[in-house]
Amino acid sequence: MEKDLKHLRKDYVKHHLTEEEAGFDPYRLFDLWFSEAQKSEPEATAMVLSTCGDRPHSRVVLLKEVRDREFVFFSNYNSHKGRDIELNPHVSLLFFWHSLERQIRIDGIAMKVSHIESDNYFYSRPVESQIGAIASAQSDVISGRKELEDRILELSEYFRHHPIVRPEHWGGYAVRPEVFEFWQGRPSRLHDRIQFSRTDMGWKRERLSP
Amino acid sequence: MEKDLKHLRKDYVKHHLTEEEAGFDPYRLFDLWFSEAQKSEPEATAMVLSTCGDRPHSRVVLLKEVRDREFVFFSNYNSHKGRDIELNPHVSLLFFWHSLERQIRIDGIAMKVSHIESDNYFYSRPVESQIGAIASAQSDVISGRKELEDRILELSEYFRHHPIVRPEHWGGYAVRPEVFEFWQGRPSRLHDRIQFSRTDMGWKRERLSP
Repeated sequence: MEKDLKHLRKDYVKHHLTEEEAGFDPYRLFDLWFSEAQKSEPEATAMVLSTCGDRPHSRVVLLKEVRDREFVFFSNYNSHKGRDIELNPHVSLLFFWHSLERQIRIDGIAMKVSHIESDNYFYSRPVESQIGAIASAQSDVISGRKELEDRILELSEYFRHHPIVRPEHWGGYAVRPEVFEFWQGRPSRLHDRIQFSRTDMGWKRERLSP
Repeated sequence: MEKDLKHLRKDYVKHHLTEEEAGFDPYRLFDLWFSEAQKSEPEATAMVLSTCGDRPHSRVVLLKEVRDREFVFFSNYNSHKGRDIELNPHVSLLFFWHSLERQIRIDGIAMKVSHIESDNYFYSRPVESQIGAIASAQSDVISGRKELEDRILELSEYFRHHPIVRPEHWGGYAVRPEVFEFWQGRPSRLHDRIQFSRTDMGWKRERLSP
């Protein structure tokens, strides 16, 4: 499978990002860009979570909440990402919104949320998703789709007569940002990149070379 | 900026991925999915590159070629990603194609391509992009947009009378995959995940729990 894509070339021309627009609060700018993305993107909450035990791994997860200035998502704590975070709590989050030619990168530290917070979200999900979370040992090898479906059937039957309880190994992570980078595509690859870094004195804002 | 997105909930229903469809060659399956993505995605070549010096970092780069079973992109070797790869050549690539409810993850080793290959691509780019690559010390802090634009003007003037030469620190990386994971969204979070891992005996195929 050889594939030459070098002729594909597109200039980014829709927006720009000045220091004035960026302001001094990365949360305010995130809020602004996220609100615009919700109007033009099919799934604005999709973000790429990158973790690194000994080597980098990434996957899409869904942003479920921003509270106390932390970004919250949910997962199986025994999954590959959970094991990576156990080894190294430094993670990165990335939003790429092609319709706006924008990217937001967040580097931060992931911490488990409280049991109460995990419970609250778990029980708000549809019963099928609750059972799915119980049935699936995330990232483990299974013999085939049938093994999963049999397990779901079995558990669905069981939970007709028993209360569903959130498994201990399923819950939320909250990411506390250390660095935000806002990237706005511009013509001839001369993109606007504004970075905010957390310091003892508040957020430091800098423009990066594209 | 508090933001509660927990009510947003979408089932993935468009496709499935059986072992029969997956086959035994991850490149064949990549080719198939990529061809479909080129029809339905605005920028199918966009992939998230994750690197990890001591902590994970990710950003979107564009896939420029698949040749010799390696995935090629170009960058400034002195950029943050370049320095990360110098420290740790293990990288991950991620394609997320929302229109197809599909994700492909590739874990592999990044190596610099030959000078000839970097030259060939560099000189195929528009002059503005060539000058942009020379003007920009990627990821370095700059005083403002004006610093960049002044430098571009200066270089554009200079290169009216001098040949443009690819800077040594600009070139390609080729990623040799060790693991592919093909993820197809399915209802109730019971997604199809088929993983191929490189072994001495060829590619090992396994289904992962969602």
